[in-house]
Amino acid sequence: MSDEHLEAVRAAAGDAATQAREHPPASPDGRLLRRLLDALGNPPLRVTLWNGDSIATREPVAATIRISSRAALFKLLINPELHFGDAYADGTLEVEGDLVQLLEDVYRALPHARSSGLRHRISDWLHSGRRNTLAGSRRNIHRHYDLGNDFYRLWLDRDMLYTCAYFATPQATLEQAQTAKLEHVCRKIRLRAGDTLYEAGCGWGAFAMYAATHYGAKVTAFNISREQIAFARERTRALGLQDRVEFVEEDYRNISGHCDAFVSIGMLEHVGREHYRELGAVIDRCLDGAGRGLIHSIGRDRPEPLNAWIVKRIFPGAYPPTLREMMDIFEPLGFSVLDVENLRLHYALTLRHWLERYEEARERVLAMYDEPFVRAWRLYLAGSIAAFNAGALQLFQVVFNRSGYNDVPWTREHLYRSAAR
Amino acid sequence: MSDEHLEAVRAAAGDAATQAREHPPASPDGRLLRRLLDALGNPPLRVTLWNGDSIATREPVAATIRISSRAALFKLLINPELHFGDAYADGTLEVEGDLVQLLEDVYRALPHARSSGLRHRISDWLHSGRRNTLAGSRRNIHRHYDLGNDFYRLWLDRDMLYTCAYFATPQATLEQAQTAKLEHVCRKIRLRAGDTLYEAGCGWGAFAMYAATHYGAKVTAFNISREQIAFARERTRALGLQDRVEFVEEDYRNISGHCDAFVSIGMLEHVGREHYRELGAVIDRCLDGAGRGLIHSIGRDRPEPLNAWIVKRIFPGAYPPTLREMMDIFEPLGFSVLDVENLRLHYALTLRHWLERYEEARERVLAMYDEPFVRAWRLYLAGSIAAFNAGALQLFQVVFNRSGYNDVPWTREHLYRSAAR
Repeated sequence: MSDEHLEAVRAAAGDAATQAREHPPASPDGRLLRRLLDALGNPPLRVTLWNGDSIATREPVAATIRISSRAALFKLLINPELHFGDAYADGTLEVEGDLVQLLEDVYRALPHARSSGLRHRISDWLHSGRRNTLAGSRRNIHRHYDLGNDFYRLWLDRDMLYTCAYFATPQATLEQAQTAKLEHVCRKIRLRAGDTLYEAGCGWGAFAMYAATHYGAKVTAFNISREQIAFARERTRALGLQDRVEFVEEDYRNISGHCDAFVSIGMLEHVGREHYRELGAVIDRCLDGAGRGLIHSIGRDRPEPLNAWIVKRIFPGAYPPTLREMMDIFEPLGFSVLDVENLRLHYALTLRHWLERYEEARERVLAMYDEPFVRAWRLYLAGSIAAFNAGALQLFQVVFNRSGYNDVPWTREHLYRSAAR
Repeated sequence: MSDEHLEAVRAAAGDAATQAREHPPASPDGRLLRRLLDALGNPPLRVTLWNGDSIATREPVAATIRISSRAALFKLLINPELHFGDAYADGTLEVEGDLVQLLEDVYRALPHARSSGLRHRISDWLHSGRRNTLAGSRRNIHRHYDLGNDFYRLWLDRDMLYTCAYFATPQATLEQAQTAKLEHVCRKIRLRAGDTLYEAGCGWGAFAMYAATHYGAKVTAFNISREQIAFARERTRALGLQDRVEFVEEDYRNISGHCDAFVSIGMLEHVGREHYRELGAVIDRCLDGAGRGLIHSIGRDRPEPLNAWIVKRIFPGAYPPTLREMMDIFEPLGFSVLDVENLRLHYALTLRHWLERYEEARERVLAMYDEPFVRAWRLYLAGSIAAFNAGALQLFQVVFNRSGYNDVPWTREHLYRSAAR
């Protein structure tokens, strides 16, 4: 969304409130709907009810929401964040028009501070059964990442990277951008041949294999998703990398031994903020005195729980930290932060590629699961694009080493050389 | 210092403690000295007392400290951090050998957590008369920055930049590196012709003049040091820039109006951690919706007060924040951190250039002040090199904008183009 459009959205929110007061919808249901829109900060959209009542906060709108029953409207009033997703998934709520733009408009219009206390309480309640204990993490990770490699293969890139890519230009293909991300990370940690590299939360193993193949690193990669590990081991054998890459089915808290570099790409979101010091202690235990580290994670500008529906239906136990919260990993043990890069818009673009492939694979997803599943995952992907575009989510890459170690490059220029290797 | 030497220092600390216990110095004074060295973590050094007693924690050492009286030794025992500086300045303590290396060894050997509670209490006491209220800040800044432009001219670069330079390579001259810093900052905030730029804490005005001359920005620069403002205004007139650069003698808290970019280079150290939210509110009040900002500040890996002697004699009211503490500026008001770069070693090198020039100008400094002043400032410069080299101090450049604004470059590659403008 352009910044001009953004200004228009913000202005519209004010206008709409006025407009709606001048033309109040006649029915009691219409008045309930009015309250819902107020609670959402009056984003630009049209809502049509089962009885034909219709309110547009302004014209033109990106999309129209159709609510099919009074029960659905009541649920939305009680907890719009949670029930919008469920209603969309089961079809009691339909969206006509641009789903991503609608959700981005909602993110941008949402009043920030107003509901934050309530949102934290709801979040605590949602998280209460999903704590990231050793067993809890295993359950939480299983629920998402063990959905089946065949499912993820339908819409991820050929190397099955399920984290933010790095687009040197927005025109890069998803495959190019995922490879560029792997290269960017290797350069950031100044990986060298023979380095022992630990990776915490390795997904389907693409980074581990890249680091071994292109940098000659000796990699040990940890993950608690059984399906991902099985896939990664099979591919490693096929590539003849089994002497240089080992996949261990183990929680990050149980990592021991010694490494020259420590990387974690897209795991911190699942660690939970109460465990950051433990993660720091694991790194402190394993990382060489001259070692380099990188943590890549979805984050926030302000502390806020993850969207309640995402936590309940998609990512149990997940929490995106602010930079301040991430410092719990580094400060207590005297790590030194060398570089932080925010790649928020790269994640929005990555997700656009995923959503496009996902829609192309719609029939095959439907054959594997059912219509509510298809719709829920569409909403999750579209909502994530919207959240990154609107700045409701960030993507931080943090490079660190031990305090006082001076073998670091003078500048970051080496990250941008076209033929650095 | 190489990382190998560092390992040696750390190993030596352990050996030395053992050694000293095996050969305890005979006299009671020697035993007091032993306690002092233990408290310092047994850095590699030799200490010789007025009575001829001498202890080396190991051989070889970078330097020998001569303590000329029992009174001086007692003071060092009570508060080494504070009294080392005073004793060095008044000559009751002499250092023979490499002063910078000695101080770096001390920084590296110092036990971290042990004395931190006490250090915070001493710091609170030292700060108690130096609070950064509007009047307090004016007094604090006056004490350091109004020492006289003639004094600073003796050892700063030709543009009087008194903040960390940016060395594209370590071989760059100080003049090249200071210009490169100005350019680096302008690129980071993507300064454009016609932009209104606010600078909080502008020193002698070099950045403001650079931004106007090379980027066509319209600059308003704020400072509470009268001497600096007078110098900056005079130079601005000489350069014919008075239509594009205005210097205002005013505290950052009183900045009002509207800007497209907000920069502060080397002021945050003097703001005081209890005022970061106020600074954030000032930026929030002034910065355009699409505006960009940069804060450049000395920092820490862990929260710790600034060296007590530096606070008492050199920089009253100063405090270098950790990244977590800096987030008080950004998080409460929903700014988005785009980029953090740690330039610690660049500051060590900048300070080496300053110290070299300072030593060359020694006679002229002596003619302006007196021997204790000459020695105190040598210690401050040498100690700062040591602190940045040892990782006791960091230098953070933080780039930010408002949450959710998307007109940002895809990558940071534009910072590293040799002819970007």
